[in-house]
Amino acid sequence: MNNRSELPQPGADPFTERTPRVIAARRLTRRAEREKAGRFLAEGANAVGGALTFEQHRRGFVHHLFVTPRAEHTHAELVSRAHELGVPISPITERAAAALSETVTPQGIVAVCDLLDRPLDDLRTGRGLVAVLVDVADPGNAGTVIRVADAAGADAVILAGDSVDPHNGKCVRASAGSLFHLPIVRADDVASVLCACRDAGLRLLAAHGYAETELDSLDLAPATAWVFGNEAHGLPAEVLREVDSAVRIPIYGAAESLNLATAAAVCLYASAMARPRSSGG
Amino acid sequence: MNNRSELPQPGADPFTERTPRVIAARRLTRRAEREKAGRFLAEGANAVGGALTFEQHRRGFVHHLFVTPRAEHTHAELVSRAHELGVPISPITERAAAALSETVTPQGIVAVCDLLDRPLDDLRTGRGLVAVLVDVADPGNAGTVIRVADAAGADAVILAGDSVDPHNGKCVRASAGSLFHLPIVRADDVASVLCACRDAGLRLLAAHGYAETELDSLDLAPATAWVFGNEAHGLPAEVLREVDSAVRIPIYGAAESLNLATAAAVCLYASAMARPRSSGG
Repeated sequence: MNNRSELPQPGADPFTERTPRVIAARRLTRRAEREKAGRFLAEGANAVGGALTFEQHRRGFVHHLFVTPRAEHTHAELVSRAHELGVPISPITERAAAALSETVTPQGIVAVCDLLDRPLDDLRTGRGLVAVLVDVADPGNAGTVIRVADAAGADAVILAGDSVDPHNGKCVRASAGSLFHLPIVRADDVASVLCACRDAGLRLLAAHGYAETELDSLDLAPATAWVFGNEAHGLPAEVLREVDSAVRIPIYGAAESLNLATAAAVCLYASAMARPRSSGG
Repeated sequence: MNNRSELPQPGADPFTERTPRVIAARRLTRRAEREKAGRFLAEGANAVGGALTFEQHRRGFVHHLFVTPRAEHTHAELVSRAHELGVPISPITERAAAALSETVTPQGIVAVCDLLDRPLDDLRTGRGLVAVLVDVADPGNAGTVIRVADAAGADAVILAGDSVDPHNGKCVRASAGSLFHLPIVRADDVASVLCACRDAGLRLLAAHGYAETELDSLDLAPATAWVFGNEAHGLPAEVLREVDSAVRIPIYGAAESLNLATAAAVCLYASAMARPRSSGG
């Protein structure tokens, strides 16, 4: 409440779902429009917080912040940060917020940001851990894996082949801000992704339910790119041929498999925890 | 297709969403009705497969199988198994299947089963690994944790306190059949759950984002009950006081936390993989 005085245009009529700026922003819920505009929507407190931290390092990254009166109250600190960073802020109605949201529970705070893609050529692998998603279809899964990769200290997440756009609203939401914490690379050509990882000194391990090698039989300390496949179909044969080893997560019970996000959590954390700690916790 | 001859009443008019048996089954999508009837709906191929395997060990467990013409074709083997086990099978329309489904993509095959609850007193802990969920609200999360616990070889999953009903359709779907693979216990009183685990010789470890002890600093070989809290609020203070140790999953990057299912995957697999293997993979 003590930030109220910093809010722009107190009492101004909020934008509705028919206001041209909201209509233009709403287009960004579609992939093709995001590509055309080079922008996407970061919705919710976690995402907006991540976007504003990013803005501190790359000014002009956040183009606009839309906030409902309710969110202006609940997320006063975020609105205040945006104001201090000089981000244009516009009040919107709840219906406008719903129009800009790809989730069933819009949080009423949405930032319009530049796309986050980094080129594959810039891949930095100082921590020796990269997650590669091949043909991953579900945006919630992709976002959860990005969050897990961030938590496990990965250098980057690469969305390869026919994978979902990480700027999809459901992916942004599931990543809980992690989308802004580590480099996100998109690359259609899976072979060139595997080459780039190898050139960066990473061993390639593919998570594969039918592999002979089991996770707990491997030395996981060496620098690794973990490769994960599509939720339903797994990894294509040509990818399995290219990697150094296909690895199976041991199943100790009667389950057939793990889902993508939990499998990625097990593999990425097994690698992260096998490393000597460089700094205390 | 070679199972077609075994299908009951070929050409019979399928039940619609207005047929009394479908109306009665549809009531089981509500928790109170499930409690009253002592039955629930297992929807989709994974769940029906698990239910039929269960039926082999406890005859009369599956009361009825509803199948659309499409699913009768796609899942001919399941329908044939149900037929051999003497389970009554009724054809239903796609609209009836949608009425019985709590997901957006009904698979057209639904079994009416007895509730799976096992009493807390019967807790068997031969493998030394139990997952306890306290006040877990989201059925998809609960189902995913049940799947992970099954894969990690857990003895049981206990839903304690004000947790979601594991027989909820979204939980059944997310568990991918695992609901039928290991004992599921529900118990309102969290203290008695912790007591039962301790009496069974299990050490109590609570996953907690602000704990001092880190996962990779612990010997995870001893028999353990892992305790996980609500998605938004974590574990209540009185639970944290009762456990032997609160444990933090180390965060190596900038993420604030992991979500419930991926945190459970990391903890349960860290325990499972720390054990000497009793049989080859």
